Amino acid sequence: MSPRIDALQYANWSEKIFRQMRAGGVDAVHVTITYHENFRETVLNIERWNRWFERHPDLIFQGYTADDIELARATGRTAIFFGSQNPSCIEDDIGLIEVLHRLGLRFMQLTYNNQSLLASGCYEAEDTGLTRMGLEVVAEMNRVGMVIDMSHSGERSTLDAIAHSARPIAITHANSASWHPALRNKSDRVLRALAESGGILGFSVYPHHLRGGGDCTLVDFCTMVARTADLMGVDHIGIGTDLCQDQPDSVVDWMRAGRWTKARDYGEGSADNPGFPPMPDWFHDNRDFGTIEQGLRAVGFSAADVAAVMGGNWARFFAQSFGALETAQQEAAQ
Amino acid sequence: MSPRIDALQYANWSEKIFRQMRAGGVDAVHVTITYHENFRETVLNIERWNRWFERHPDLIFQGYTADDIELARATGRTAIFFGSQNPSCIEDDIGLIEVLHRLGLRFMQLTYNNQSLLASGCYEAEDTGLTRMGLEVVAEMNRVGMVIDMSHSGERSTLDAIAHSARPIAITHANSASWHPALRNKSDRVLRALAESGGILGFSVYPHHLRGGGDCTLVDFCTMVARTADLMGVDHIGIGTDLCQDQPDSVVDWMRAGRWTKARDYGEGSADNPGFPPMPDWFHDNRDFGTIEQGLRAVGFSAADVAAVMGGNWARFFAQSFGALETAQQEAAQ
Repeated sequence: MSPRIDALQYANWSEKIFRQMRAGGVDAVHVTITYHENFRETVLNIERWNRWFERHPDLIFQGYTADDIELARATGRTAIFFGSQNPSCIEDDIGLIEVLHRLGLRFMQLTYNNQSLLASGCYEAEDTGLTRMGLEVVAEMNRVGMVIDMSHSGERSTLDAIAHSARPIAITHANSASWHPALRNKSDRVLRALAESGGILGFSVYPHHLRGGGDCTLVDFCTMVARTADLMGVDHIGIGTDLCQDQPDSVVDWMRAGRWTKARDYGEGSADNPGFPPMPDWFHDNRDFGTIEQGLRAVGFSAADVAAVMGGNWARFFAQSFGALETAQQEAAQ
Repeated sequence: MSPRIDALQYANWSEKIFRQMRAGGVDAVHVTITYHENFRETVLNIERWNRWFERHPDLIFQGYTADDIELARATGRTAIFFGSQNPSCIEDDIGLIEVLHRLGLRFMQLTYNNQSLLASGCYEAEDTGLTRMGLEVVAEMNRVGMVIDMSHSGERSTLDAIAHSARPIAITHANSASWHPALRNKSDRVLRALAESGGILGFSVYPHHLRGGGDCTLVDFCTMVARTADLMGVDHIGIGTDLCQDQPDSVVDWMRAGRWTKARDYGEGSADNPGFPPMPDWFHDNRDFGTIEQGLRAVGFSAADVAAVMGGNWARFFAQSFGALETAQQEAAQ
């Protein structure tokens, strides 16, 4: 049996949520530990996680390699893999990539909505693609084994990252733009290029990424997954819910506006709908992964393909991605 | 008599240099206090300056307003105005603009060669113009009275800053690209737009900005100044030497490569010529401003125009630029 893996959550963490992970049989979760936080602030967030790991060793532990997925299954726990949704944690310092990888950071988005030092976010009017520093950072992330995540990046930057990265990249949490044309969803062109390069997409259930928002039906969502499987191949898709469980709306304000504006930025929301949107009735928390699994079966996925989508594909991607490039190349040569 | 003002120096400061400022009759200097340093590191640099001010109160003091130019002349000292060549000092935090203005920062470049969070540097392959954060930062710099300096920015970003800024901007240290087509020099289109918006250019004597490098003659330089005066109007030009006196070559490595690359970046130099280039024989230090003045007379500038170029124009620009926007608007209405 394949593991069950969620490639993106940013919840207001608590013992309740860690127990729901166990109840939902979730073996590994890529959690966002930082957005706009600088290096020192990111380390403070790691310290918070260290306290959760110390307090709940029966429920969770920090994952560093793909082997930790198996360890989680064998010991009935959930492996927590760290990621960042913006490169603020490396500030302007390429040397921090290796340091953060050692501390367990396994994913880093090159941008979060706006222009970064590395590339352009999906809310910018213009998209440079990778900058001078972006080209250097992609090579360094490749070298140490940190996954390039382009979930919040612009189209050109995303295609550029796919083209320049020596290793497959990820879009951990987004859906198909041809299904629901949100700025955060991805065009068929991007999805095809992602798959052709060996990359992977995690499907999001965050309402702003769903056709009809929180009213999106499970059948509609799973049919979109099936169509995207036709486009990309079933080996290049997984789940990345973007679950922001129990977060107060002040958190979505921070995610959107950080420290870059004195005004309020509504991001995917609007003045009428500024907060976290209500979730679809078929996905509220980690106990609902079985519902998605049933939904995928209902639209015609085979049992093997459901297993691949629910975690098998991410497990393979983690195994390819988290080690040093040299090691990965040696293994490939054997 | 007009004051003598240099709109850009980044020397390895010492009592010797401060005495040379006095010997050269330099009333005010815009000094670069920070490049890639973050906020805290920039404050450390301010602390170094505070120690120089404390040690040499007979030679220098910190300038906050244009009135300090007159104070410098009246007391036989040089007023030192702070500036940054990159927005690293505000990190990702728009609130730091007001804080740094209070600490005396009067100029900030939106970029230094590379892409920043705000705009594109002149060494990037692509130029976005102002980013989302860049638009916000321009408005905030306008509000508090911090001058937008586009010396190291790309063409489109520079035109964008001129168009979006509610107040005239500066290019503190660069020359005409039609005279010497270096990436750091500015096109006629930019220079015209700068002048039309009330902005000002400081002519650089940094050899990479000179036709013929360190072999450039005083006559050739001054003829370029005269041609640029024809293009921009004599009220929109001044001096911004970019004097990097007594700096070791390790400093130019830091200026160029910061922390963004593990490789060496040669910037305006090259592998054959990686360090600070040798200065022209007619400008070595602050005692040589009289030589430029004589050179300008020799190519036909009137005494009044020489005075304007050597400091009068910058003095007027400082007076218009360093106060809060509201105050500047009230004064204009009177």
